[in-house]
Amino acid sequence: MATSGEEVRNMQVILKDYVAGFPKESDMHVKTGSIKLKLAEDESSDNAVLVKNLYLSCDPYMRGRMTNSPVDDPDFSPFTPGSPIVGHGVAEVVDSRNPGFKKGDLVWGRKMGWEEYSLIKEPEKLFKIHSTDVPLSYYTGILGMPGMTAYFGFYQVCSPKKGERVYISAASGAVGQLVGQFAKLMGCYVVGSAGSKEKLCNFYATLLLYLLFDWRDLIERFNLEHVSWLDFDSAFMVYKVELLKSKFGFDDAFNYKEEHDLVAALKRYFPEGIDIYFENVGGKMLDAVLLNMRFHGRIAACGMISQYNLQQPEGIQNITTVVFKRIRLEGFIIFDYFDQYPKFLDFVLPYIREGKIVYVEDINEGLEHGPSALIGLFSGRNVGKQVVKVTNE
Amino acid sequence: MATSGEEVRNMQVILKDYVAGFPKESDMHVKTGSIKLKLAEDESSDNAVLVKNLYLSCDPYMRGRMTNSPVDDPDFSPFTPGSPIVGHGVAEVVDSRNPGFKKGDLVWGRKMGWEEYSLIKEPEKLFKIHSTDVPLSYYTGILGMPGMTAYFGFYQVCSPKKGERVYISAASGAVGQLVGQFAKLMGCYVVGSAGSKEKLCNFYATLLLYLLFDWRDLIERFNLEHVSWLDFDSAFMVYKVELLKSKFGFDDAFNYKEEHDLVAALKRYFPEGIDIYFENVGGKMLDAVLLNMRFHGRIAACGMISQYNLQQPEGIQNITTVVFKRIRLEGFIIFDYFDQYPKFLDFVLPYIREGKIVYVEDINEGLEHGPSALIGLFSGRNVGKQVVKVTNE
Repeated sequence: MATSGEEVRNMQVILKDYVAGFPKESDMHVKTGSIKLKLAEDESSDNAVLVKNLYLSCDPYMRGRMTNSPVDDPDFSPFTPGSPIVGHGVAEVVDSRNPGFKKGDLVWGRKMGWEEYSLIKEPEKLFKIHSTDVPLSYYTGILGMPGMTAYFGFYQVCSPKKGERVYISAASGAVGQLVGQFAKLMGCYVVGSAGSKEKLCNFYATLLLYLLFDWRDLIERFNLEHVSWLDFDSAFMVYKVELLKSKFGFDDAFNYKEEHDLVAALKRYFPEGIDIYFENVGGKMLDAVLLNMRFHGRIAACGMISQYNLQQPEGIQNITTVVFKRIRLEGFIIFDYFDQYPKFLDFVLPYIREGKIVYVEDINEGLEHGPSALIGLFSGRNVGKQVVKVTNE
Repeated sequence: MATSGEEVRNMQVILKDYVAGFPKESDMHVKTGSIKLKLAEDESSDNAVLVKNLYLSCDPYMRGRMTNSPVDDPDFSPFTPGSPIVGHGVAEVVDSRNPGFKKGDLVWGRKMGWEEYSLIKEPEKLFKIHSTDVPLSYYTGILGMPGMTAYFGFYQVCSPKKGERVYISAASGAVGQLVGQFAKLMGCYVVGSAGSKEKLCNFYATLLLYLLFDWRDLIERFNLEHVSWLDFDSAFMVYKVELLKSKFGFDDAFNYKEEHDLVAALKRYFPEGIDIYFENVGGKMLDAVLLNMRFHGRIAACGMISQYNLQQPEGIQNITTVVFKRIRLEGFIIFDYFDQYPKFLDFVLPYIREGKIVYVEDINEGLEHGPSALIGLFSGRNVGKQVVKVTNE
């Protein structure tokens, strides 16, 4: 790291302009500027913290902030075109004029710019990292917002009971993989689905597969003999779905893109219906689930990623079933639960250390690959929590 | 009444066949048969009760039972074509082989056939009427299912707090008028809407208006000078809407059929948004409400009457707002709360006796007018709880 006060390079991922429809890598550009690694010693920096970003988190909610629709909620306010996008991340404090933080502290929070160094003027909801015997990147995932989302979403919003039937969409993602494991810990029957919206057979996807996995091992473990060596799309999806069972202990799993009739698919996996649906997808998936819910079922609406890039959302046809099936559909935003973070940490850290809960991450190295990593979320290209490691040096 | 054992006339309202789309009077016909006013003294009548029906209740949920879609819930099982339709009602016990009931008991329940006399083989959820200092017809409304629906729906499902902003659709109906009064008792700000789907200017509607109201008094009280003497449609709607304020004490009220932009209309009545929506309508109304809900708002889904006659339900476009607004949308069916009936009665009877809660009924006299009364529900022809008085003799 450069000496304090010295000007150093500060690579940034800039949002060019507000986005309509499906975001593209070209909606952002990578710019190289510079920054002084010392805070100004005047009022302008009172309470501020200067951090070196280590890991940046790719989260579906960030899509909303790429649109210029004013919202009352500062957590969802639009990004500023011409400036770096902002999100959750893990960082090291480089300089601090805030009594709560000092140089060298490791922190995670939700105000990290997508850049090498960020000035955080109001470090609210910036958490100090005390446990470093787990990967630091976990604080963008299982030990950060997605972990809390899974924990409070499942245990508080879903009101689960032992033996209940739990369905999770986007189940191999940052949140879904944990909800499934929490549900298994509680003695529930758990089925997850995953899918991919676009053809993955491109250079990067192929490379990713070779880099991430021992191919021959995969072939053996998941009976991939029927998959052509060159059909990476299929192999990738088989892998992604099998992971839910083999790695996270789900009772069953399926690729929803292979099901032309989602209602029938869910009926097959839940012949007696679904008690709890952890909703990450929305649209047609929600409609199919509504027809398969049991009486007094609960739907925790964590997100509806399938709708975020649509100019006109898909209409939900089967909403009247909430009445006669007495369904509770409840939206929640994890930012409301941040004051309970220590309680969550006490719960989850022992499970990680004992290996009773596992966490899969999809880490792209280098800030310059940030835009592609973020965009990949919306086509289901990631396996597990999508993270950008800011530097691969 | 005829002597025990004697055969007497038993007029019945028969469902001709299952109904698709909007139900019509001609989907039913009135048939005159006969019945013996004494139960058979063999096993076939063990536990049975024979009743003379006094009041029959017209309820929106009955539309669902006119369709041949198998449901798991016996409360919503399809009617049998060729047999009388079945619903809630108030009756007098004529003969009983059930230890819980004796001749002369007044009862209300949900298994009354639309006929002069009904044989109830399994009188479960048949309640004895003890308080007769209030109109007996009230046991189809404020003291029966609609009353409990309003009470448990509002106090339990909506989790209301003093000062919250409450919106009620179908507010002049059997349930809505009570929810509004409960909300006012709690110190909420209450707005209701009412509407009518079809032209009401027909002979019966006109007659109804003349019969029900003192026309000159109406003109004065509701400033109807601008309404043409012959424009009964407009006058009727003005009356229906004004009733919400003048009779039930709502803070404001509007005719939703006059609003071409429901989103804007709700914004006008709730500039700071809606905390609680008591949902009776569904469809476009629900979509408009979702855009006007406040953070952490609650929607108690009591019914969605606008959707019951559609072959293909309207899609709900704005469901994603439940996520970022942290909205709880919860369906409920009052049949689940019947064991708490005595608690409800203890609450509501004193309010009725003290005149602190009022109840408006729309009573059609004569079973032969039953089909028209029931159909009128779906076009908003009723003002208040729609009841059929079985005999006008």
